[in-house]
Amino acid sequence: MNSKYWEQEIETMPREQLRQLQLQRLKKTIAIAANSPFYKKVFQENNITADSINSLEDIRKIPFTTKADMRANYPFGLVAGNMREDGVRIHSSSGTTGTPTVIVHSQHDLDSWANLVARCLYMVGIRKTDVFQNSSGYGMFTGGLGFQYGAERLGALTVPAAAGNSKRQIKFITDFKTTALHAIPSYAIRLAEVFQSEGIDPTNTSLKTLVIGAEPHTDEQRKKIERMLGVKAYNSFGMTEMNGPGVAFECTEQNGMHFWEDCYLVEIINPETGEPVPDGEIGELVLTTLDREMMPLIRYRTRDLTRILPGECPCGRTHLRIDRIKGRSDDMFIIKGVNIFPMQVEKVLVQFPQLGSNYLITLDTINNQDEMIVEVELSDLSTDSYIELEKVRKEITRQLKDEILVTPKVKLVKKGTLPQSEGKAVRVKDLRNNK
Amino acid sequence: MNSKYWEQEIETMPREQLRQLQLQRLKKTIAIAANSPFYKKVFQENNITADSINSLEDIRKIPFTTKADMRANYPFGLVAGNMREDGVRIHSSSGTTGTPTVIVHSQHDLDSWANLVARCLYMVGIRKTDVFQNSSGYGMFTGGLGFQYGAERLGALTVPAAAGNSKRQIKFITDFKTTALHAIPSYAIRLAEVFQSEGIDPTNTSLKTLVIGAEPHTDEQRKKIERMLGVKAYNSFGMTEMNGPGVAFECTEQNGMHFWEDCYLVEIINPETGEPVPDGEIGELVLTTLDREMMPLIRYRTRDLTRILPGECPCGRTHLRIDRIKGRSDDMFIIKGVNIFPMQVEKVLVQFPQLGSNYLITLDTINNQDEMIVEVELSDLSTDSYIELEKVRKEITRQLKDEILVTPKVKLVKKGTLPQSEGKAVRVKDLRNNK
Repeated sequence: MNSKYWEQEIETMPREQLRQLQLQRLKKTIAIAANSPFYKKVFQENNITADSINSLEDIRKIPFTTKADMRANYPFGLVAGNMREDGVRIHSSSGTTGTPTVIVHSQHDLDSWANLVARCLYMVGIRKTDVFQNSSGYGMFTGGLGFQYGAERLGALTVPAAAGNSKRQIKFITDFKTTALHAIPSYAIRLAEVFQSEGIDPTNTSLKTLVIGAEPHTDEQRKKIERMLGVKAYNSFGMTEMNGPGVAFECTEQNGMHFWEDCYLVEIINPETGEPVPDGEIGELVLTTLDREMMPLIRYRTRDLTRILPGECPCGRTHLRIDRIKGRSDDMFIIKGVNIFPMQVEKVLVQFPQLGSNYLITLDTINNQDEMIVEVELSDLSTDSYIELEKVRKEITRQLKDEILVTPKVKLVKKGTLPQSEGKAVRVKDLRNNK
Repeated sequence: MNSKYWEQEIETMPREQLRQLQLQRLKKTIAIAANSPFYKKVFQENNITADSINSLEDIRKIPFTTKADMRANYPFGLVAGNMREDGVRIHSSSGTTGTPTVIVHSQHDLDSWANLVARCLYMVGIRKTDVFQNSSGYGMFTGGLGFQYGAERLGALTVPAAAGNSKRQIKFITDFKTTALHAIPSYAIRLAEVFQSEGIDPTNTSLKTLVIGAEPHTDEQRKKIERMLGVKAYNSFGMTEMNGPGVAFECTEQNGMHFWEDCYLVEIINPETGEPVPDGEIGELVLTTLDREMMPLIRYRTRDLTRILPGECPCGRTHLRIDRIKGRSDDMFIIKGVNIFPMQVEKVLVQFPQLGSNYLITLDTINNQDEMIVEVELSDLSTDSYIELEKVRKEITRQLKDEILVTPKVKLVKKGTLPQSEGKAVRVKDLRNNK
């Protein structure tokens, strides 16, 4: 096997045929889901049966499923299959912010999942002759077992290093000649630093391919990781509710993540109205599983914001591509009628070497007008010259306006001035009267 | 399927037939091993080929393989298969005490391993309708992925809880109605305590079966765990070099662990001489893999001390049973010509409620005579009465003499008097002149 594709027929399936496959699987999924207490009730209340779905658009007849629904029906209210006989694995969110969400898989589900992960890894050039090291936590976190089973399915030599212990990770990479590594972006940067402190040139190891995901990051961070480790880094998208990794993944074009549409139906909606947004516009990702038997999810609101990238991909895969995740719909704010995501602001700021990484967006009412103030810390390397700084400030303002269509007030502040985040950074402070 | 056996034909195979199968697999194993740089050299130096092995006893023509051999040939000097093409997983010891030992598996090896673990779990009554929670660490530690793949192979509903976070473990047990749990013995006791502090009666949960291993423990500790959690607890034996869990496991008779002889050839040797000990005598366990393709190990000195239990098992399985691990051959000491293991002393001490858990064995030369002094701390509950204590001391001395055939000098000391261990307890101090 020396093809570009893990499953050529499915990956390059003409879109009309792919949509037919989706419709057929959607009807099957609805028939299965009707066996769960939750969907049985939802379908009865909305007069839904598999027969009432005659086009992919008909899915809009079905209400969304939310995380709150999953919590209200914890632990097994959405399980449709015979869990006692056929359930083989439970994954669960950490539940640190409330009741955990739970997903139950059958053997079919695990097989399908492992195959999707193998398809992703194969797509970026990882082959059975590669050595694949996984620095994810294992156990309930799906990045561990998800990549483990997928990489084994591919036939790669897996190194289940699990999270932490950077010196040991580096020993494995060095001794086992690891060629492909899965890591969250911040940890990839950390590893590069530890390589250096161990006296090893991080650009000169056996590593060729990095799989990065699970943590929002910008393309600039990706490029930084590629430079620091001398690798190609590919963006991975997944979530426990949709199995875990293997949902969408970049191809070697590094221009958007192919969404495996034979297994997922993708909608992008306006998070305020629930209506679909036009292709290419940012909105909330809503997903339906098409190949899961034990616990299908229908129209699941992921809260993740992205957009469908227009046009065909030169790689030949026909499955749609989504842009990197732009943030969470909970983080979105509206000012002067425009929907804005902190990620859009960050994307501009990160390009200025004069700036540090800490910033704060304040929304305020000034003279009865909504104003957006962007405060950003200077880096250690920046100049003290007022004239220079003023030039930078103006350029930032111009680029932000281009990106978000609103002109913010930009303030450059000294390093250490803004509040430090512990854990998830607070990027937006809304002080408006009318919010 | 409602049989007692996962694989009846193999589990109840008449011993003569089992030995035939072992011989055939041993010859195959030697042929495979000859492709590894390490065994190629060993075999050449000793004129060994598969054809020179015509009985199981012929294995004694081959030298032992030691942990030092594995370290000297780190990482891949013992790999016999085509690792690049067929290797799918590396497991490695933690390497905290030196170069780690590394085991490489093919898909065949992982399948065989998962099947053995499923056979163990099935043997103690775990079925596909059970909910199996694994509180092992995952990643490189084989207790994680080993039980995960085995329990999935069985078809149980697995809960990959991974190590730590007792409240979360308990939430899983309660919410998912876990019926079978894998835990190290000390953690099982900890969980019972946390159940209590959460206001849940630990004897009244959905738990029915506990799998305990990885940590040496006495039968008394097992019974304590059974009482505290209201379960049956089964002893599991495994080690990374032999895959991990699934090597030997108690049946419901709870009288010794059946060693899966279709996949392992068992020898028990005198650790001093390397010669086999008679059946029933304690010695060092030496193991040969019989169904591993990527990296067979031949006559691997485990350093674990045990003995083969005589007689047939009422469960109908013909595979030999070993006694629980008595300690490490490194810990063995010889006094007055008798081989003694600290575990034998501990086994006696643990039966006295007047005693705490801390003890120290000192070997000393007194008047040109070797003497063995056993100091043991009293528990909080013990009496202060000299007469009472003297009675206890004499009874301990008598029982120790029965167990180890040497009369030690026993000293009862106050709690907190003996040095506290951090990590692995130091149980033997040898001050003899002639050691």
